[in-house]
Amino acid sequence: MLSKNNIKLIKSLEHKKFRIQHQLFVVEGLKSVHEFLKSDFQVEKIFTLTNNFTNNFEDKIEIINEDELKKISFLKAPNQVLAIFKIPSIKKIDSNNLVVALDTINDPGNLGTIIRLCDWFGLEQIICSKDTVDCYNPKVVQSTMGSLTRVQLFYTDLKEFISSYDGHVYGTFMEGNNIYESELSKKGVIVMGNEANGISPEIEKLITQKIAIPAFGKQHDTESLNVATATAIILSEFKRR
Amino acid sequence: MLSKNNIKLIKSLEHKKFRIQHQLFVVEGLKSVHEFLKSDFQVEKIFTLTNNFTNNFEDKIEIINEDELKKISFLKAPNQVLAIFKIPSIKKIDSNNLVVALDTINDPGNLGTIIRLCDWFGLEQIICSKDTVDCYNPKVVQSTMGSLTRVQLFYTDLKEFISSYDGHVYGTFMEGNNIYESELSKKGVIVMGNEANGISPEIEKLITQKIAIPAFGKQHDTESLNVATATAIILSEFKRR
Repeated sequence: MLSKNNIKLIKSLEHKKFRIQHQLFVVEGLKSVHEFLKSDFQVEKIFTLTNNFTNNFEDKIEIINEDELKKISFLKAPNQVLAIFKIPSIKKIDSNNLVVALDTINDPGNLGTIIRLCDWFGLEQIICSKDTVDCYNPKVVQSTMGSLTRVQLFYTDLKEFISSYDGHVYGTFMEGNNIYESELSKKGVIVMGNEANGISPEIEKLITQKIAIPAFGKQHDTESLNVATATAIILSEFKRR
Repeated sequence: MLSKNNIKLIKSLEHKKFRIQHQLFVVEGLKSVHEFLKSDFQVEKIFTLTNNFTNNFEDKIEIINEDELKKISFLKAPNQVLAIFKIPSIKKIDSNNLVVALDTINDPGNLGTIIRLCDWFGLEQIICSKDTVDCYNPKVVQSTMGSLTRVQLFYTDLKEFISSYDGHVYGTFMEGNNIYESELSKKGVIVMGNEANGISPEIEKLITQKIAIPAFGKQHDTESLNVATATAIILSEFKRR
């Protein structure tokens, strides 16, 4: 039987305040939970309909029924298991590789997609402005499909980080150089801007290489690509060469 | 005053059945409505908080208040105007260019993003399997940000269309050729598959060029890119050359 305290705890983890207070976050679905279990993340508790996990986690498992899972799940269609993991301690930023820096990304789905893309293209670190959506937000965790176990996110003062960064700082702007014809280095920071406002003026000043994805269509006076699809195209260009 | 009949009509247009019956669909938000008004689409009615439209549409406009807009809007945050447009008659498929073909795309957001991408990269037509989500679904219209005015969608028997197509048919598969090293033609069909199941077996048989976006990360036994980001990378590769 699911205790009232556990229900209360899980519900509270939808909110950043309580995730920070408890240093815990929620992962749902068989595939994602398996990915987190085989990673360095430490599991606190597994609530599952059937026990199809290895013996290693026996003391963490609580068998629940479908009604109980519905009660605690953040998903419209709960998927067999919900687990609580510990938020890991923060590691050090390694500036010797290509990193993506996010300037106020608000949408959980966009952040999740960008984490998946970094994982796909072998970028292990993402630097986020402090007001970027939290990566342990249930919607972000869900949409990363386990990629969050292989990509580290750092929430920091983006202006300070870039100011002290020694290398190329890329950002996309309408008037930037055609990315297909630009030199792209193997090390550097790629800044992606807010969904509505793009890169903020104070960060724009720190961009050393303005790039642009050229449009091939007809009318693009006001139109731009979504930040997640722009990230896909940019990472593909950086890595294919 | 908003009539009960208008409220009922608008609400009904959330469903494909009634969109087909009335041959109408809904567009919301100032920017999107303006894009549709300046396109070939024919407007039926404009419900707006303030009349900031040109005289051309005077007889179509009904001024409503915020409560009324909330009542008819499909958005969490209604944006000043909701308009009803006529579904245009279907034009002819022009197979002399690059076209994207969608094999059972279910998610409105994904379809919207793919329409925006086609617009960006200058692809004017998308061929959809009959079970792909309807492009006049309010969520799709919303997420296309006006791109739907420049990209035509055809819902048809995909197997039949591809079978009779004379040219290269591309599809992404794990075992496909590295897209960065493949020859990509200027004319052809690029098939994108379902979110969960990829390209269906009957369509796979018709693919003449299997391509793959190589992963640069570590662990990708089961992982794949989201269909919209994969489309972004593929279209970028086709068009940059």
